Amino acid sequence: MPMPKNRDVARATLESLYRVFTIPEAPDSTLGEIDRAITKDVAGFLQTHIVALERSLEEIEDDFSTSLIPEEPTYVSEYTEFVKEKLVAQSVHTAAPGFIGHMTSALPYFMLPLSRIMTALNQNLVKVETSKAFTPLERQVLAMLHRLVYQDDESFYEQWIHNSQHALGAFCSGGTIANVTALWVARNRLCAPDGSFRGIAQEGLARALRHLDCDGLAVLVSRRGHYSLGKAADVLGLGRNNLVMVDTDACNRIDMGKLREACRRLQDENIRPLALVGIAGTTETGNVDPLNDMADLAAELACHFHVDAAWGGPTLFSEHNRQLLDGIGRADSVTIDAHKQLYVPMGAGMVLFKDPTAQSAIEHHAAYILRHGSKDLGSHTLEGSRPGTALLVHAGLSIIGRKGYELLIDMGLERARTFAEMIRQHPDFELTSEPQLNILTYRYCPMNVQLALGRATAEQRQAINLLLDQVNQMLQKDQREAGKTFVSRTRLQELRHGQLVTVLRVVLANPLTTDKILSSVLDEQCTIVLQQDLQELLQQVKELCAATENSQASPCARVSRA
Amino acid sequence: MPMPKNRDVARATLESLYRVFTIPEAPDSTLGEIDRAITKDVAGFLQTHIVALERSLEEIEDDFSTSLIPEEPTYVSEYTEFVKEKLVAQSVHTAAPGFIGHMTSALPYFMLPLSRIMTALNQNLVKVETSKAFTPLERQVLAMLHRLVYQDDESFYEQWIHNSQHALGAFCSGGTIANVTALWVARNRLCAPDGSFRGIAQEGLARALRHLDCDGLAVLVSRRGHYSLGKAADVLGLGRNNLVMVDTDACNRIDMGKLREACRRLQDENIRPLALVGIAGTTETGNVDPLNDMADLAAELACHFHVDAAWGGPTLFSEHNRQLLDGIGRADSVTIDAHKQLYVPMGAGMVLFKDPTAQSAIEHHAAYILRHGSKDLGSHTLEGSRPGTALLVHAGLSIIGRKGYELLIDMGLERARTFAEMIRQHPDFELTSEPQLNILTYRYCPMNVQLALGRATAEQRQAINLLLDQVNQMLQKDQREAGKTFVSRTRLQELRHGQLVTVLRVVLANPLTTDKILSSVLDEQCTIVLQQDLQELLQQVKELCAATENSQASPCARVSRA
Repeated sequence: MPMPKNRDVARATLESLYRVFTIPEAPDSTLGEIDRAITKDVAGFLQTHIVALERSLEEIEDDFSTSLIPEEPTYVSEYTEFVKEKLVAQSVHTAAPGFIGHMTSALPYFMLPLSRIMTALNQNLVKVETSKAFTPLERQVLAMLHRLVYQDDESFYEQWIHNSQHALGAFCSGGTIANVTALWVARNRLCAPDGSFRGIAQEGLARALRHLDCDGLAVLVSRRGHYSLGKAADVLGLGRNNLVMVDTDACNRIDMGKLREACRRLQDENIRPLALVGIAGTTETGNVDPLNDMADLAAELACHFHVDAAWGGPTLFSEHNRQLLDGIGRADSVTIDAHKQLYVPMGAGMVLFKDPTAQSAIEHHAAYILRHGSKDLGSHTLEGSRPGTALLVHAGLSIIGRKGYELLIDMGLERARTFAEMIRQHPDFELTSEPQLNILTYRYCPMNVQLALGRATAEQRQAINLLLDQVNQMLQKDQREAGKTFVSRTRLQELRHGQLVTVLRVVLANPLTTDKILSSVLDEQCTIVLQQDLQELLQQVKELCAATENSQASPCARVSRA
Repeated sequence: MPMPKNRDVARATLESLYRVFTIPEAPDSTLGEIDRAITKDVAGFLQTHIVALERSLEEIEDDFSTSLIPEEPTYVSEYTEFVKEKLVAQSVHTAAPGFIGHMTSALPYFMLPLSRIMTALNQNLVKVETSKAFTPLERQVLAMLHRLVYQDDESFYEQWIHNSQHALGAFCSGGTIANVTALWVARNRLCAPDGSFRGIAQEGLARALRHLDCDGLAVLVSRRGHYSLGKAADVLGLGRNNLVMVDTDACNRIDMGKLREACRRLQDENIRPLALVGIAGTTETGNVDPLNDMADLAAELACHFHVDAAWGGPTLFSEHNRQLLDGIGRADSVTIDAHKQLYVPMGAGMVLFKDPTAQSAIEHHAAYILRHGSKDLGSHTLEGSRPGTALLVHAGLSIIGRKGYELLIDMGLERARTFAEMIRQHPDFELTSEPQLNILTYRYCPMNVQLALGRATAEQRQAINLLLDQVNQMLQKDQREAGKTFVSRTRLQELRHGQLVTVLRVVLANPLTTDKILSSVLDEQCTIVLQQDLQELLQQVKELCAATENSQASPCARVSRA
């Protein structure tokens, strides 16, 4: 090991501190070497340094158990060894092509050096005084995404893109803040100043309700709505009871009949619909709500229509597939996450507003920044200080281009269809949701068990599913711990009988995921179930299935399955 | 210029896309060269590439005026040239030692390679499945800061640091989300489930008020409170009217008498105090509220006591100066920004809670992540997906150490006192707020004008200050545009007569800022006022001052000034 270069730092003198701020890591230092390794070959670095086999979280915690801030400085080299051995080795290989359980992917290579430029410049987008050109850049990115969704004409964007009073949307740390911002704007617009009422922003929610003469404001979304909407209902003071989760059809899309029914019920309770939220790519199953129908209803109710397209928004890049999101342009606001299908590193979301003046409802100022008439972006965002992440989105849009993203989207959708077919053909698995975009769910449930479920009584079905839930839960956990491939799990109504069951969830956005990898995911699962504990559970399933032979289920169930 | 390496990308074929995801930038590519330059010498890179002379924002906007997403891909090399010329050149040199107007600084060198590790790993802290060791790491960082503030004993931290039900605080994108989170928790705790009332999270604010039998919930803070509190009052449904801004004493600290008075007034209006917010380092002047007195009052009122120490929190590192924050350990919650005085790149804040169970009030779950009993940090945060920024805080605490931060803090406070003395000694400037920490304000106001203001009538004073406001505003703008040094400006009550005036604001946290640079800031300002437009204004000031010679002001004013 080379002599630590910053050894004086470990004495905490002024001189040594200056060094930390002025002298870079030597190229042959541990940190310099890691840095070069990542620059040269990030995939190789991750492959080499992330240890596949999982230590238990409790074991890992031992390395992070001191609550005392070290009194004395540490050598950079020493700290880097710690990072390498204790942190990097025990992190998750989210970029691995076999890690298909969550919304992560390999990143385009140029994102890394551009991230370094961003970090080195350390701009703060809250105000022009600390961001200058980054402010017009961010405004441009918002306009580009706005145009992708709303397709207004050139003159519209000329008028609004750099308008000092308004913004076409807000950059956020992620989709949650984007959704909260959208509903915050919706709430403040519904409860706008009116006569002697000075508006909800000023007077608060209770007075706003009195002014509107109603007993509450509700947000309606399907049961597949993202959990951030619950947080939004809580933080905005609406209450989670007023987040109405509407049942879906067999394709995980909101049931319009039930949505209308819910609206009528609210009317009876004197609760006003604040917003309908359509989902363009449900988190768990990747389905898209009937956005046009929802837009019609929102117009009828004169309420806000928000579309959570955090996941599915970039489908709009694809000429062939953008019709899947038909009606999105009628939304009052749309959430899109850049750290998902725009392939930007973690921490970048956006909310766009159809009406460029919408965000006036949440406008704020201060004496030292965000002065009236300034172009400071911070006057229309929930967050304050923010980094220049817009650069990375701008880079993606410029370097990959619309057609490049189209290829990525089309490829993901195609791969999901391929994987769905693999599952359907496989004797041991059951597809639990058809992929509409590039997400699907399935479960370990051999064909003979599927047949047995078809003829089983409700009670038998429940008993079998309970065991299958355990099998799939253990399967998912063991696969994750083995560290080769990864799928996630959730609980969903299964298609045929609407029972809540544990399913495995797959997200297919990493362009490096191949069909061969997909097939190896299933192979690995088939191997895992051979373990004794799982076999014991499956033996119990088998016995329950045998009992269904004598059950009273109609022959139709059997036929329809055959 | 070398041949672009990724030229095939510009055709948007699948093959070219794979390349973007698998083949790094060649070291001799434009991006590779920039990357190396930043690695070798970030200060030199910024110095060379950021153009000092300002183009107008309107001119810059021309480079970011297209709202159409490019149809075809672009060569990375071509895009990099654009970034270099149009973005980097026109960004703000926030790390420059002469850029002392906002809360930015040079960063320790190790932050850059560690940021690259963080970006390459692309962990998502919302859940253990995408963050593994980063979750215990973040919990440890929260515990370390918690201990810095609250100084609980070893057994306390052993019990709570990795507790799966709770968290000692929340990592956020910045101080605003931290403040919102603190008040969200406070609101939900005050309006907790009780008998048949299921709590505000469930039932909403209006029903909560009915349950508490009051007409509103108020947050009380001094006039120096950060503007994020206004956003919090709005977004949480309290209404900005219920953010009570209390007058301060001559040292910009909350006036306890007026605070008590405000509380009494609220009682008369049947509005319940939800929280008192103490400030440990006001954004504009760096003053610290009497935290112990506020803690006493909060206890008396049985309301939440939050301390916004986004700026001043790290003063606790200094054994000599930590007493300036006496009483902070009595706060129910504390905000600290890591991207301020922990010298971490933009985008890192924290809120800490004295009571480790406090965040249960905002706890949430979902079926696919954040399941009950998991250690997923996302179940207690406002944000959802978040990057592994905790690594950079952990690195700072480990490498710089408590004693290193102490030196940085002590140095900044010392430098502020030095600069204050320079201003006091200078015939052309007036110190408008004494530095308590490392922030101060002053204005261009020559000694003879100061004397004239002392003897002027209220009307004369107003006329003179109006002109001085213009002078200082133009001064600040011209200095910023010249691009050599930078101070910010705000509007504050000046010390002697409480009139609202425009002042220049200086933040001294960059360890590379020298006394010589400070003196050059004043020199530059003295040169700028020689410009004709400013001289014309100063001529008018002179005439108004002459008129005060005959005014009726008491001789005392003159004496006290002499």
